[in-house]
Amino acid sequence: MRTRLLLALDILSLSRARELCGLLAEVVDIIEVGTPLIVCHGLPVVSKVREWTGGGRPIFADTKIVDAGRWETLEAVRAGADMVSVLAGASEATLSEVKQSVVDSGAEMVVDTIDLSPRDESKIEFIDHLLPDYLCLHLSTDVVKRGGTILDHRKVLPLTASPPERIMVAGGINLHNLREVLKAFRPAVVVVGSGLSAQENPLAVAREMRRYIDESGV
Amino acid sequence: MRTRLLLALDILSLSRARELCGLLAEVVDIIEVGTPLIVCHGLPVVSKVREWTGGGRPIFADTKIVDAGRWETLEAVRAGADMVSVLAGASEATLSEVKQSVVDSGAEMVVDTIDLSPRDESKIEFIDHLLPDYLCLHLSTDVVKRGGTILDHRKVLPLTASPPERIMVAGGINLHNLREVLKAFRPAVVVVGSGLSAQENPLAVAREMRRYIDESGV
Repeated sequence: MRTRLLLALDILSLSRARELCGLLAEVVDIIEVGTPLIVCHGLPVVSKVREWTGGGRPIFADTKIVDAGRWETLEAVRAGADMVSVLAGASEATLSEVKQSVVDSGAEMVVDTIDLSPRDESKIEFIDHLLPDYLCLHLSTDVVKRGGTILDHRKVLPLTASPPERIMVAGGINLHNLREVLKAFRPAVVVVGSGLSAQENPLAVAREMRRYIDESGV
Repeated sequence: MRTRLLLALDILSLSRARELCGLLAEVVDIIEVGTPLIVCHGLPVVSKVREWTGGGRPIFADTKIVDAGRWETLEAVRAGADMVSVLAGASEATLSEVKQSVVDSGAEMVVDTIDLSPRDESKIEFIDHLLPDYLCLHLSTDVVKRGGTILDHRKVLPLTASPPERIMVAGGINLHNLREVLKAFRPAVVVVGSGLSAQENPLAVAREMRRYIDESGV
């Protein structure tokens, strides 16, 4: 299993998002329509991003569902999402509804641990048994801004014992820490936002990231 | 302090949302632009709802922020929100950013406990010290659909010892359980979605709710 590179389109104008899709769709494996884009423009932006990438890459809608699991999943899939996210902190009912809805619609489910309390052992066990397609070990950008790193955060992140083929990792990942991240998590998917979108030459950085991944032998 | 009645516009078409605004804006105290409307249409729907209500009622954008606290708060306020919500499960950094941003922008902050683990005592203490304008004790609609009630849920809800003037309560509230809810929580704000929007005569139900509130003496 080789780690896949995911480009997250977060706090960006639509024109910049479109530009990045044109530039990077061939080099990355998955395109994420970030929560900020969905909040600003609604789910129709998911179909726009699909169009801009030519349909050749899976589209992950970072919906961060926390209620109305079935309705939100199906709306996102209808808008063109191949993957949707649900918050680990959501009720077991909501997590189950998302699970059933991705099964019904042929999409994939990402459980985002950004709001998961490491003390909530019964929820951690529940999520483990739910067998989501991906578990996203996620450090918030607000913590990254204050100097936190996903590598330091690793020790307190729950679910790090989960099988690597289900692990996504997100939060402040860039060219400088990518090698260490790959080594520490051996993830299925590595999520990169400003580590690509805010760089002077995103294409060169993406290619370099791809090289690191190939060299890591993950 | 009299309990205020909040109309939540959730899974609705825009035309139905508009109709309900016209019908109920004078009878309720706060209008909520629900997460489903924001997900479907983006933040511009907040300014639409403000327009439909004639600007006479505070608008609560149920943003359920869980990252990028400052950016999301300010975007919602820019779209016309007087109140925004942040998830209790968000990182302390994100909760702090939302707090600072509502102070800076003159808006109000709702901490939504829908994803809060009752075991996370340090987070509960953090939120208590943060002094948000409102704490929303919130049972998810997915749990309500499976027979859960906010009254049963009360015992496991964290933060129920918080001062009533900060308490919002949400999840399956309708004319049949309103009196009990008022008695159990003595809340500052009672959130009603389908308990109004899915009724045959929402105006009559809203007036009846108002009467219950007046009679409750909260």
